[in-house]
Amino acid sequence: MIYLTRKAEFSSAHYYWNEAWSPEENDRVFGRCANRNGHGHNYTLEVTVCGEVDPVTGFVVDLKELKDILEREVVRVYDHRHLNLEVPEFAATVPTTENIAVAIWRRLDGRIPHAKLYRVRVYEMPDLFADYYGEA
Amino acid sequence: MIYLTRKAEFSSAHYYWNEAWSPEENDRVFGRCANRNGHGHNYTLEVTVCGEVDPVTGFVVDLKELKDILEREVVRVYDHRHLNLEVPEFAATVPTTENIAVAIWRRLDGRIPHAKLYRVRVYEMPDLFADYYGEA
Amino acid sequence: MIYLTRKAEFSSAHYYWNEAWSPEENDRVFGRCANRNGHGHNYTLEVTVCGEVDPVTGFVVDLKELKDILEREVVRVYDHRHLNLEVPEFAATVPTTENIAVAIWRRLDGRIPHAKLYRVRVYEMPDLFADYYGEA
Amino acid sequence: MIYLTRKAEFSSAHYYWNEAWSPEENDRVFGRCANRNGHGHNYTLEVTVCGEVDPVTGFVVDLKELKDILEREVVRVYDHRHLNLEVPEFAATVPTTENIAVAIWRRLDGRIPHAKLYRVRVYEMPDLFADYYGEA
Amino acid sequence: MIYLTRKAEFSSAHYYWNEAWSPEENDRVFGRCANRNGHGHNYTLEVTVCGEVDPVTGFVVDLKELKDILEREVVRVYDHRHLNLEVPEFAATVPTTENIAVAIWRRLDGRIPHAKLYRVRVYEMPDLFADYYGEA
Amino acid sequence: MIYLTRKAEFSSAHYYWNEAWSPEENDRVFGRCANRNGHGHNYTLEVTVCGEVDPVTGFVVDLKELKDILEREVVRVYDHRHLNLEVPEFAATVPTTENIAVAIWRRLDGRIPHAKLYRVRVYEMPDLFADYYGEA
Repeated sequence: MIYLTRKAEFSSAHYYWNEAWSPEENDRVFGRCANRNGHGHNYTLEVTVCGEVDPVTGFVVDLKELKDILEREVVRVYDHRHLNLEVPEFAATVPTTENIAVAIWRRLDGRIPHAKLYRVRVYEMPDLFADYYGEA
Repeated sequence: MIYLTRKAEFSSAHYYWNEAWSPEENDRVFGRCANRNGHGHNYTLEVTVCGEVDPVTGFVVDLKELKDILEREVVRVYDHRHLNLEVPEFAATVPTTENIAVAIWRRLDGRIPHAKLYRVRVYEMPDLFADYYGEA
Repeated sequence: MIYLTRKAEFSSAHYYWNEAWSPEENDRVFGRCANRNGHGHNYTLEVTVCGEVDPVTGFVVDLKELKDILEREVVRVYDHRHLNLEVPEFAATVPTTENIAVAIWRRLDGRIPHAKLYRVRVYEMPDLFADYYGEA
Repeated sequence: MIYLTRKAEFSSAHYYWNEAWSPEENDRVFGRCANRNGHGHNYTLEVTVCGEVDPVTGFVVDLKELKDILEREVVRVYDHRHLNLEVPEFAATVPTTENIAVAIWRRLDGRIPHAKLYRVRVYEMPDLFADYYGEA
Repeated sequence: MIYLTRKAEFSSAHYYWNEAWSPEENDRVFGRCANRNGHGHNYTLEVTVCGEVDPVTGFVVDLKELKDILEREVVRVYDHRHLNLEVPEFAATVPTTENIAVAIWRRLDGRIPHAKLYRVRVYEMPDLFADYYGEA
Repeated sequence: MIYLTRKAEFSSAHYYWNEAWSPEENDRVFGRCANRNGHGHNYTLEVTVCGEVDPVTGFVVDLKELKDILEREVVRVYDHRHLNLEVPEFAATVPTTENIAVAIWRRLDGRIPHAKLYRVRVYEMPDLFADYYGEA
């Protein structure tokens, strides 16, 4: 069993806001992130898959295929987008780093041929990241 | 003469748009950056000042003071903001990396005691940055 | 269950020395680290907490609160300090990267509301780090 | 139990090729990596060992000794070498990142005094790495 | 006048060898780099152009166009190639970091619309790079 | 003319203190750096030399020789040392990043065969560095 990790990047806008709360409550809980004009980040995504190494190719996963899946399922949907306004899973869910990691897991799980999705790591900033290993 | 550089960071949203153009023209020139919902970045700012080293303190510039100036003049104004919508210099100027570097120069020039502003560098992404050395 | 990691930094002096040994024995085991004048490092701390994502806020932990805890419990105590001379847990314990990771765990464990401390990682240099997951 | 990680680097040439296949099949599966003239990388190796912290020294492992083992068992053999042509384990095995991680595990396992080899991580590029935790 | 820098990467094999010298002389001068099987690196290229900012677009240079030029003139020619064996400028010139910087300058100079090539920087390793500013 | 830069690292302790001042004045000017127990950093040194590329070797400078000079003149003297207490140039000069850059220039200038020392850059932290280009 070997674990292979590939990085990808996307640059997106977002804000934190709970419609059920007053503006004051949003400010108190979310601070500067509650600015409805939005702000943004260069997100770094690390996707780890695991499996047996194919003895003929030496691959756990076809890297070109993995890159294409990340591009199609995540980067094309999130990059240069406003997460709250344009990405359906954040219409009613706050796009925190934690929730972005869970959402990317759901986008990728079951779509990687010959390997198992093991971990999704999302960096919002170089000094802050979230890891998700699936529902269990 | 010695050159001292200090980094700071801000996370902002922006888009590229020219009101004088049709949406098609904006799309053609600005591509995915023309999305009016905005996207965003973790910007890294490097400010270089130069001057003589004070023989008593060993400083070109008081670092605490420099940090406070960057915080007050730039970070507090740009961080967690939408550059087009909330920062006055980008109301009618496209917030490209080049223009952000020039704008930060204008915010800082003449405000650093005992040292001369030498260069403003702005990274929009780790693989793209602009340098500005002043008007001349 | 999601894992959230936040980084912090501190710059400290230290040396390696065992009072029960001769200077020669200290030199043999600790090499250049046995210099009693001390040397120092920019340490990077990565603290990982885990828990359920709060469905309302999208947070495992309040980031501002986590940052304040790291600042109060670790950075304020270690930063710009001599670990052997000024930090009580290293009065009689060699401040190796391993022991610093354990000491930071003990400072943080039980102090993070709503989340469980999962891992403490300490980098002494970019090419050397220690991970501690608790006593068990 | 604590985990200590040390990095090392080596710069090597390699190519991907399966002698049992036609050139066309090699091109189809391995793409640009199938160029028999070779290409190369700056590999980064992260070796993690685990064990109890020695209460006297504060070490899980003697760092100088660990560095010497990595140098002797891996860096001296791989650095400034063509992996396919000069490193025996890749004479008949494709030197993918996955296979390099497994090969380095086999070179190191059982050779680190007082500590257990826990993980071998190999970066081929900053955005691609493989982890191996041993045969089980 | 503003300076804009864009990075690109290529992974290549190379060796250092002077046909006019004996193998012993090559070994003495070039050390481990004289291994004729080749070794390799992940090179990082930073290309800096300068010019006036277009007041309408906010661009010194069209970034998409610059990226395409770097891709076509450099990356497609050098990446996943053996520099000595497959890149014409290194058939009789040692592909040192210095010479690679000069060669990339010659490939790019005069090909960037609306801006002037200012500097070519090539990293062979994170701790070694060469800068070239043109012939003058 | 080409510019070649090589990095090196050293880990040292230091403090900022002016004997002519009261403790209160030292605290006011130097803040936490005035702690006489010392603190420390992982310093990164970037040394840039310039010259003509030797047409036979492709070198501005022999890299092995440059590395040995940095090691002998700087790293061996500063690394794992207390700058104030053990390095003569800081006996009466505050070891600020600016002064360290100037001191390293003086240690290296005139000692690099076949090339001219162009710039000494010293990082005290990843977000703070000083550049020195010589006395003129």
